[in-house]
Amino acid sequence: MTVFDDGIALERTADGLLSGRTVPEWANMVGPFGGITAAALVRAIELQPDVHGQPVALTANYLAPIADGPFDIAARAVRTNRTNQHWYVELSQDGEVKTTATAVFGIRRDTWGDTQLVRPAVPAPDEVPAGSIGPTWMANYDMRYVAGGIPDGTDGASASSETLLWLRDNPARPWDFASLAAACDIFYPRVFLRLGRMLPAGTVSITVYFHADTETLDAQGSDFVLARAQAQQFSAGHFDQSAQIWATDGALLATSHQIVYYKA
Amino acid sequence: MTVFDDGIALERTADGLLSGRTVPEWANMVGPFGGITAAALVRAIELQPDVHGQPVALTANYLAPIADGPFDIAARAVRTNRTNQHWYVELSQDGEVKTTATAVFGIRRDTWGDTQLVRPAVPAPDEVPAGSIGPTWMANYDMRYVAGGIPDGTDGASASSETLLWLRDNPARPWDFASLAAACDIFYPRVFLRLGRMLPAGTVSITVYFHADTETLDAQGSDFVLARAQAQQFSAGHFDQSAQIWATDGALLATSHQIVYYKA
Repeated sequence: MTVFDDGIALERTADGLLSGRTVPEWANMVGPFGGITAAALVRAIELQPDVHGQPVALTANYLAPIADGPFDIAARAVRTNRTNQHWYVELSQDGEVKTTATAVFGIRRDTWGDTQLVRPAVPAPDEVPAGSIGPTWMANYDMRYVAGGIPDGTDGASASSETLLWLRDNPARPWDFASLAAACDIFYPRVFLRLGRMLPAGTVSITVYFHADTETLDAQGSDFVLARAQAQQFSAGHFDQSAQIWATDGALLATSHQIVYYKA
Repeated sequence: MTVFDDGIALERTADGLLSGRTVPEWANMVGPFGGITAAALVRAIELQPDVHGQPVALTANYLAPIADGPFDIAARAVRTNRTNQHWYVELSQDGEVKTTATAVFGIRRDTWGDTQLVRPAVPAPDEVPAGSIGPTWMANYDMRYVAGGIPDGTDGASASSETLLWLRDNPARPWDFASLAAACDIFYPRVFLRLGRMLPAGTVSITVYFHADTETLDAQGSDFVLARAQAQQFSAGHFDQSAQIWATDGALLATSHQIVYYKA
């Protein structure tokens, strides 16, 4: 039972909901780290008695900050097909919805496959120093920035919006679909990097496509994954970012996209 | 009133739902073109009396094929904040949910902005011949393929999964958020291009990030947009694709991502 497991721990309540609570170790600037919330939503579906298949896609929408304390998750299978299942999920506190999500779970089948993206060539994790600055929750990860580390106030503006880092849970923990969802939200806001300073910003909606299956995750174990994110456009108070999570051996485990609110 | 307007026409019913129906001109291989469904979902929110702001993000999930005939759309504002609003939407036929969606609408504000993506250099639309093959709905678009046209059976396999085309409604129609959502789903399945043949494939979930505001869309009028899509990974029965829609003058109007089921 690591701090990650503690962050996504859920208990079934009498009314069929799942009950969780925020833990101080996952605190972000306002409310908990969005990635741990996304992970709890994945876990909430995995815990349903009628779950069918494994995560294929998740879209989580952050409606309002989650306050310190308990929350409830209601997960509903809207439709179950032979090879996939569609979910709608709401996370609430005192009857107020704080997060919504849709998810697709599916059966993986043997098919032709190929990867179009090329994994960036990078030094091995043990050749990259650990990063340390950031909000509380970052202590729950071993983060080793290859490029695009958190600007420290002397870095100035950057033409690039790319961040590339080796990442694993701290303490190390075998990767699963829940922790992979969290990893997709690991990147501090791209606008900090572009402008070389911190400013108000927060994820509004994140989508994760899970390419890994159980066997791929088992092969990955608790080793470092390579995480990369880059913005696409900043305009009128929102920017979007695309991200990829690669296995140590080069397999593409997940791709992810998010739209982020900012003031600048 | 063009064929596009006809495809997304909705009427308010006594029980507060919006009622629409499929039209033969939008027929795809099975059910209607997913893009016209996504557009109807956007329009359903725009028609709500309590709508706040303009589309920022949409995720539509295709649970089951829509049968020929009427459908109902139920749209619920789950939360309205000062600067944005979160929606959950269901499209049903005879009480059976066929499509779900979440959407974020928001107020656009003047901020610093920049575009990280570079628009591909391409010949002007009038220098590119119109494409014509494909299912019924494609007649509702003027599609001019610059690269990655629909394989005709003699093209063979392709190492690239990229399609790049000039696109406008046929008949020409001023772009709006609904038609922009439809445009994001304009690309035939990337697996057809890679393998050089048609096979069973269908979008499971699509996400659209709207970068354009009303002024940008007004400036675009009904002129051609440049649409680009590329797959990221094909594995175990699903692939994901990322797409961009560019204005004639080079502005990035929308970015989009989808996960697609296939058999190969």
